[in-house]
Order: sequence, then C-alpha cells, then structure tokens
Amino acid sequence: MSRVISLAVIPGDGIGPEVVAEALNVLQAATDGGDAAFDTTQYALGAARYLATGDTLTDEDLAAVSQHDAILLGAVGGTPGDPRLAGANIERGLLLRLRFALDHYVNLRPSVLFPSVPSPLADPGDVDFVVVREGTEGPYVGNGGAIRVGSANEVANEVSVNTAFGVERVVRYAFAAASARPRKKLTLVHKTNVLVFAGGLWKRIVDEVASEFPDVTVDYLHVDAATIFLVTDPARFDVIVTDNLFGDILTDLAAAISGGIGLAASGNINPDGRFPSMFEPVHGSAPDIAGQGIADPTAAILSVALMLDHLELPEAADRVRRAVVADVAERGEGHRSTSEIGAAIVDRIRAH
Amino acid sequence: MSRVISLAVIPGDGIGPEVVAEALNVLQAATDGGDAAFDTTQYALGAARYLATGDTLTDEDLAAVSQHDAILLGAVGGTPGDPRLAGANIERGLLLRLRFALDHYVNLRPSVLFPSVPSPLADPGDVDFVVVREGTEGPYVGNGGAIRVGSANEVANEVSVNTAFGVERVVRYAFAAASARPRKKLTLVHKTNVLVFAGGLWKRIVDEVASEFPDVTVDYLHVDAATIFLVTDPARFDVIVTDNLFGDILTDLAAAISGGIGLAASGNINPDGRFPSMFEPVHGSAPDIAGQGIADPTAAILSVALMLDHLELPEAADRVRRAVVADVAERGEGHRSTSEIGAAIVDRIRAH
Ligand SMILES: CC(C)[C@H](C(=O)O)[C@@H](O)C(=O)O
Ligand SMILES: CC(C)[C@H](C(=O)O)[C@@H](O)C(=O)O
Repeated sequence: MSRVISLAVIPGDGIGPEVVAEALNVLQAATDGGDAAFDTTQYALGAARYLATGDTLTDEDLAAVSQHDAILLGAVGGTPGDPRLAGANIERGLLLRLRFALDHYVNLRPSVLFPSVPSPLADPGDVDFVVVREGTEGPYVGNGGAIRVGSANEVANEVSVNTAFGVERVVRYAFAAASARPRKKLTLVHKTNVLVFAGGLWKRIVDEVASEFPDVTVDYLHVDAATIFLVTDPARFDVIVTDNLFGDILTDLAAAISGGIGLAASGNINPDGRFPSMFEPVHGSAPDIAGQGIADPTAAILSVALMLDHLELPEAADRVRRAVVADVAERGEGHRSTSEIGAAIVDRIRAH
Repeated sequence: MSRVISLAVIPGDGIGPEVVAEALNVLQAATDGGDAAFDTTQYALGAARYLATGDTLTDEDLAAVSQHDAILLGAVGGTPGDPRLAGANIERGLLLRLRFALDHYVNLRPSVLFPSVPSPLADPGDVDFVVVREGTEGPYVGNGGAIRVGSANEVANEVSVNTAFGVERVVRYAFAAASARPRKKLTLVHKTNVLVFAGGLWKRIVDEVASEFPDVTVDYLHVDAATIFLVTDPARFDVIVTDNLFGDILTDLAAAISGGIGLAASGNINPDGRFPSMFEPVHGSAPDIAGQGIADPTAAILSVALMLDHLELPEAADRVRRAVVADVAERGEGHRSTSEIGAAIVDRIRAH
C-alpha cells in the first residue's frame, strides 16, 4: 500500500497561485506510480484573504495547517502601497508567524548555477553552495518597540535575540549538511567585531560544535566581506551558516548571482519533525506581473524538490531536479509562459 | 596668507601606514602652491599601540584628535585570531569610538566605476552612486548584552536604537546630496516588513523630508532586494540612504562591483562641523599583505579627495580625482607597488 502524505497548499497572492499550480503538476508527475501519494488541501491565505475577511492567519488556520505533513507556499503579499493593506503586515502576520509557530529553525536555501544559465557575474565559476539561515531568532523576533511615535522625539528599537539553544541546533544542522557534502566546508557569517554579544555566541557555538565534526573545515567571514566574495569568488562557498537577517540578505544576493530569483528555492524546515516543514520560492508575489501567466514557476518547482528530499523521497526529488536542469539548459532568449515551462518540465519527467 | 588646516593622521596597522604615506604625498602635491597648507600630526593608534601599551583610545587621545580640523585614517586592526588581541576590540574601541564620539552621523561612500576598471559584473552599466550610511545609531550602538555566557542557556541580545533626531539629520543630508546631483534620485533601503519599528521610523522621516525636496524622486527597497539590484542593475542607484548595518553591508558589495575594495573611499562626516570629520579607505588593515609594499593606495588617495571636498577645496579634490581616473584607466595586468602607484598619481598632478 502506498504512503499517503498530507500536503497543505498555500497558493497566496499575485503570482503565487500561478507558480503553485505548475509546482503541483510537477509533484504529481514526479510521484506518479511511486509509493507515495499526496493528498492536498488548499488554504486561502494572504493579502486577498485579508482584504476579504480582515484575517491574516487565525489560530484555527494555524491549527489546521499544522495537521499536515508538509506545506507548499507560493508567495504572499499584496500590492506595495495599497492603502487597504496599511494596517496589515502580511509578512509578519502570516509568513513569519508560520515560520515561528512551526519552529522552522532551519531556512535552507541552496544556490547552484546550473549549466547554461546566465549569471550577472562575468566569471562566476562553479557556484554550488547552500545557506543555512536561522529561522526563529535574531533580529526577526519582532521584539522591538517605539515611543513618541510620529514625533520629533520618537525612539524606535529592534532587539535581536540569540540563544545558545537556538544557535546550537541550527549550527549542528549546518555542520551535518557540510559533512554530507563533498567539499565539507562551513563558513560562519556574522559581524562579530560590531555585534559582539550575538557574534560572540555564534562564534563560540561554531567552535564548540566543530569539535564534533573534525572532517569539516570551518572559516568565518564578516557579513560585509561575505557579500564581496559572493560576487568575486562565489565558488569558495560550500555551506554558509548565519542568522536570520544576514541570511535574508545573503540569499537574495546568492539567488541573483546564480540565475536570479526565478530559480531560487527554499525550505523552512523543522528538523525535529514536530511541525510540518514549509517549502516556498524565495521570490515574492510580484503583483506587477501577476495574472499575465509570465511568472517563472521554476523556483516553486525546485521547492517541490526540496520538499521531496525532506520527505525522504530522493528519487522523486532527483527526477524533478534533472528535469529542471535539462529545461533551463535549453532556455534561450524566447519567453515561455508559466504553464509552458511547467508543462515542459512535466513532459521531461514523464518521458523518463 | 594661506589657510592652515590642522590634520590628524592615524596610519594604524597593517597596510594602513603604507597607503597613508602615499595619500599624504598626493595631498601635498594637490595643495602645493594653493592657499591651504596642511599641518599634520601623527597619532600611533591601533593594534600595535594596544599591544605595546594596553591602550586602545584613551580620553587624552580622543581629546587630542578632536582638536584638529580633519582626520585621515589608514586602517586599524591586528591579525585575526592573534591571542594577544583576544581581550581587545580595536574596531569598537577605536574606530567606532571615534565615529560615535565625533558624531560622524554621515558615513559617505561613493561608488563610481571609472573607465577601464574591471568589474566582476558582466555588464555593470554606468555605476555612479553614493551611499549615505547613518553612522551613530542603529545596530552599531553597542547596546547589547548577554546572560549565562558560555553556558547552554546563554542569551545574547543586540539592540538597534533609532531616533527621529538621528534619522532625520542623515535623511536630510541625503536629500540635499540627491538634490545636488544630476539624477536627483534617493532610494531608502531598510527592511520595513520585518523591522517594523525601526523601518517605520525611517519610512516616516523619508516621507516627511521628501516634501521639502520636491525635485528629488524617492523610492524604497528592502535590503535583500537592494543587493539583487546592485548586481543586476547598479546604474539604477543615485543616492542610497540607509542605516549603519545595512550601509556597512551594501557599501562592501558596492565597492566590489565598482572595481574592488582597493578603490573604495569613505568619509565619516560631522556636517555640523562641531567635530573633525574623518576620512578612510573602506578596506581594512589586511595583515596578510602588510609590509610587502603591494597594497593599493588608491582608496586612501580617493579618501583624501573626499576630505578636500569636505574642507571646501574642490579644485584640489578634482586634481586628485582626475589623476586617479587617468591612472586607473591605464592600469593593465601588471602589478605596481604601493609607492609606484602613489608616485604615478603624484606625477600626474604635478604635470598639470
Ligand atoms: C517577505 C519577508 C518577510 C521574507 C524574509 O525577510 O524572510 C523574504 O524576504 C524571504 O527571504 O523569505
Ligand atoms: C571595521 C568595522 C567596524 C567597520 C564597520 O563595520 O563599519 C568596517 O567594516 C567599515 O565598513 O568601515
């Protein structure tokens, strides 16, 4: 009898539903006839839902989504500057709430420059690294506040909270990931010379966990220097481990140099398995191109591959990745529609 | 009678003294026969001083340096991992202490890709922008702390402090800078969707000050998106205004795409003129190449040009910049020494 995996699907806003539709077709093709079947439930969450009902993510929504084995998310967020969204913060209220509530302490973002894919770098070299971004702490905790708001005497603070518990679990995950890769190299990125408290904690934990992984080579870069290496020598990186905010910044830059945000996949992972992990393209809802059927679904499709890895379906994951690599290798200047790209990848999977 | 400008010179560590020596030669050549003369006093500050005396920056040092009209700094910092420096934090104790004590609220970092200078980008376009980085607030305030340090229950926090006073003065400076440039465009970079308190303050102040500068076009980018544009379309930027930490990250990336850290100059400016402003290359002390006479002094030399701008000696500043532009245009693959580059730039200035 086949294993049934229950999948929550959050198509979201803008191009989200468009790319998710293709991703689900690919998931179907890659798992057809295998011994896992996906039972999907769609959740209408995002700016559209907020505009319709005033709700961002209710406790009931959260409880329902949490019941599933995994979550596939398209993109959430309305049109920037939409006055009807002024009181909402879809990012904090929905996306970050899910990441925090479901204890997604590993935000996994691979960067691979596939053959034939153009890079803005003149000489990118062999780009193949993964960023392990912490997902539940740091400057993202929402632990800020402001006084005298709107006045000339306003003070607005943001607190970055870092715990040994939180840092150690993500650092250990990153070491294990490095140890499983051929080059076995881990780079801690922080700003220890300025953020001495948080940086000191990260440095100490990396030094301590390093002793458990003698096969892994460790180095350290300040975040500013890391951006330089990402454009001058990205091939130097294997596994990067860093905090939530630095990881946000570095992974957009990493996506840009390795073929663009249209190809960048991510997993918000709860390695303990206590909560479902959530897979999503790094890109946003891109309201400016929504509804035209021109969004590139590749990042969402590669996010399905990450999900299949996580669900321990490596053969299905490989099928998806091989089809994507073959497809992108043949992309010329011509523009295909969202569904053409999705269909081409599905066809490649079915042809094998 | 000629105006006498009193200049504090902090050569610092590593390649600092090497590049400062050339920068001072260039300063001399550019101002020779003009109506300003520089009276320089050298201060031995940095890791070497710390190792010799245990002092980083004493109150007496600070008082002495503060007496001058301007400060030229090479680079400070010892060899990373030097156990004798374990207890020191030269960056916080010296560099940041100077920036904060001297109220350098504008950290000015131009990025110009000069003709013939190679960029890691395949198609950089016309790169000519300036980052106005806040220098006295944000995550750099040193307002963090940790408990249970060294234990499995450690908590390490960092507080970003942002005030309407502090944000407004730097935003107003940035608008004035944008208004004085041909393209008159200002981009606020922050992370308003996550850092809602600090981001909200920055956004409000930019919106308010914008009404005083109707000639300036304003846009906003999240910091992660800004890194993408810096590698895919850097020509879109004119003036960027941002906080201390985002500015640190963006300016290293900006330096990388516009010819490298060997060309990146900066000014730590107190626009009020209550304290001396401080000019320094963006690069560090590079202990790995120190003492070999191979460091590129161009960033220090361009920092002299920024200093001359600030001191209202625009003709001397132009002499320096024109000589640098001509010199870099003729740089081939051959490697010249630090003093050869300095001498070549001096010769060009004297020849005009
Ligand atoms: C939308 C935003 C909250 C989010 C983040 O900052 O994490 C996004 O930029 C990302 O990287 O997934
Ligand atoms: C050395 C360090 C404290 C400094 C900073 O972070 O500001 C440097 O990176 C810079 O950009 O001038």
